[in-house]
Amino acid sequence: MTDLPILRLKPKMDPRRIRFGYPWVYDNELVMDRRSKAIAPGSLALLEDAGREPLGLVAVNTASRIVGRVLDSADVTELTPEWFTTRIARALSLRETLFDQPFYRLVHAEADGFPGVIIDRFGDTAVIQPNAAWAEVHLETLTDALVQVTGVTNVLKSAGGRARGLEGLDDQDKVLRGSAPEAAVPVPMNGATYMADLTGGQKTGLFYDQRPNHAFAAGLARGAKVLDVFSHVGGFGLAALAAGAESALCVDGSQPALDLAIQGAAQSGLGDRLTTRKGDAFDTLAALAEEGAQFDVVICDPPAFAPSKPALEKGLRAYERVARMATELVKPGGYLGLCSCSHAADLEKFRQVSIRGIGKGLYQTGRSAKLIHTGFAGADHPIHPQLAESGYLKALFFQL
Amino acid sequence: MTDLPILRLKPKMDPRRIRFGYPWVYDNELVMDRRSKAIAPGSLALLEDAGREPLGLVAVNTASRIVGRVLDSADVTELTPEWFTTRIARALSLRETLFDQPFYRLVHAEADGFPGVIIDRFGDTAVIQPNAAWAEVHLETLTDALVQVTGVTNVLKSAGGRARGLEGLDDQDKVLRGSAPEAAVPVPMNGATYMADLTGGQKTGLFYDQRPNHAFAAGLARGAKVLDVFSHVGGFGLAALAAGAESALCVDGSQPALDLAIQGAAQSGLGDRLTTRKGDAFDTLAALAEEGAQFDVVICDPPAFAPSKPALEKGLRAYERVARMATELVKPGGYLGLCSCSHAADLEKFRQVSIRGIGKGLYQTGRSAKLIHTGFAGADHPIHPQLAESGYLKALFFQL
Repeated sequence: MTDLPILRLKPKMDPRRIRFGYPWVYDNELVMDRRSKAIAPGSLALLEDAGREPLGLVAVNTASRIVGRVLDSADVTELTPEWFTTRIARALSLRETLFDQPFYRLVHAEADGFPGVIIDRFGDTAVIQPNAAWAEVHLETLTDALVQVTGVTNVLKSAGGRARGLEGLDDQDKVLRGSAPEAAVPVPMNGATYMADLTGGQKTGLFYDQRPNHAFAAGLARGAKVLDVFSHVGGFGLAALAAGAESALCVDGSQPALDLAIQGAAQSGLGDRLTTRKGDAFDTLAALAEEGAQFDVVICDPPAFAPSKPALEKGLRAYERVARMATELVKPGGYLGLCSCSHAADLEKFRQVSIRGIGKGLYQTGRSAKLIHTGFAGADHPIHPQLAESGYLKALFFQL
Repeated sequence: MTDLPILRLKPKMDPRRIRFGYPWVYDNELVMDRRSKAIAPGSLALLEDAGREPLGLVAVNTASRIVGRVLDSADVTELTPEWFTTRIARALSLRETLFDQPFYRLVHAEADGFPGVIIDRFGDTAVIQPNAAWAEVHLETLTDALVQVTGVTNVLKSAGGRARGLEGLDDQDKVLRGSAPEAAVPVPMNGATYMADLTGGQKTGLFYDQRPNHAFAAGLARGAKVLDVFSHVGGFGLAALAAGAESALCVDGSQPALDLAIQGAAQSGLGDRLTTRKGDAFDTLAALAEEGAQFDVVICDPPAFAPSKPALEKGLRAYERVARMATELVKPGGYLGLCSCSHAADLEKFRQVSIRGIGKGLYQTGRSAKLIHTGFAGADHPIHPQLAESGYLKALFFQL
């Protein structure tokens, strides 16, 4: 038997949800007596049903609404180095099947068996986001396993994720192994080279999730004039140029991000076809319309306008506005790509407001729209089957 | 003014739905008086709101629940040859952007401005499915326009679509221009060559809609043992072999389909790595399990188990059963692809039963599943924005 602390489901809670693989236990589902409450955040515990049948090994955080995160079956009582290497090796095998080069999201939380943990790989540097208390406790073992399985030289900890606050964790970035790259790291993707700033940038410096949507947009862009709004380091713009676009204009509010886009274009041998414009996206869309600018392909990949339910209505209005303003810049027969990374706006809601915005943008032009493609995050962002609603990224492509 | 017959919305019907682009008017939304009822199926009419404001040019079929299909704005009063060539040219421009070779769905009904009309292109042969009465009336003009814009030599009419019955149309196939190919036509797709039987086969002989899902599966298949269940002419199997799969086993109930798969493999230079097995899919899945067969990649692309709402529950049970039986044939760490082309089973329902079936298949193995990709029909199957629920094809890929 084990000397792990016990977390017990309330009598009315059906244990089958956990038995069928649901990975979370909430505070209101558990008997939160004095002993349960005393379990230190990040500790392991044995989850039992009300009849004392063991359900699984869980990581505990009493400071979070998700008190228990299922790590393994109940016969596992400790997290050995092998526990970590086995799971990382499994995660690696998927990515090595998918990609020829070591640039990808290596660990995507629950789906890869590491609740709350994100690991992005940039060649010989990995960036860990340990966004759950248990991962912070086991960070050294996790890091050792990561180095052993993948052979990366540098491991950075990124502590900027919003989830860390909910878990009661600090926001201190750290170098865990090797050293932080002194300059932006070149990342080959979709035929272009992107520059990822792993220390000063946004989160892990580059978003791998849009890779298949970049590729789809690039397939529309041969010979095209492309507008990439909310471009960050040039995600859609550089992929389009690499696929033969005539020109790409990247718009972003961040000059450092645009500088990285310019660097990436230069590295890709595409520098002469990229222009950038720093400014608020809405203002810039309005200014471009004012100037009479027209593009063959327009892509808008805004930050999460509706990150949570309370922000939903306002966020949906913002998506509609983006759709309307972007539509006015698309040549007849051209293409419009609209993205949302908002958890709260599901595919159907996002599609509805996008279509409404496009309808307003096309009003009285006599033109109509076709929805030609719906895309999600890339396959290196797998989804836990019991959390299938957690697919946050949506991309819709229209011909107008 | 026009001498077209008039169709008028009932007073309580809000005309904005049509003004915002909804392409259908149902029988219960219209004043169906003696004159309306007398409009011959396939005729054009002017749609008006209750206040006699014109809303659009519609094609009429009083024999269908969808009495009016919006063809154009109200200032268009006839379908000239140019009306057809303009729309076909627009449809062609999308496909020429998407594909290097002339093998694709050229016209996908409402989204391409041709309500109820499907046109698939196989090089210099096109197959029209005129699944609405208006298209049958204008079939000659449509065919002329098709030949003029695309330069195809042979045009076949395929009258086997279920929708034709609802429209009161016959089921007589016909050669409209040129001649019917005497043998199966080679179709290059995803690096393989498929053989499409355009006269004796299922519908238009090949389903282009799965192209991006074939490509995704192929990306998982290098060096793999692949099982393609409900394979038809070898959709997933041949793409996997072309991408470097070690072997592919195609299972289908139709020997003619399997013969085409074998022909396709031979044409692709992959004949030595393909095997086929004729039989009921469920029986064959059970037999393979009995034999202890295991595969790296298993794909199931069944016919529509839930084509309509009354068939939904039974269909969902069939999808779950496919998922469970297929799961048992996947090696640890291998991949499972599950497809549904049922209108009635939406993405969420299909995902739920798939996950449940996989859960049962993995029960007591200690293994878990990751959802790595959700795909839909290819971009040559665009969707009318007001009929976004009409996206029927879903493909889910899991790592087990």
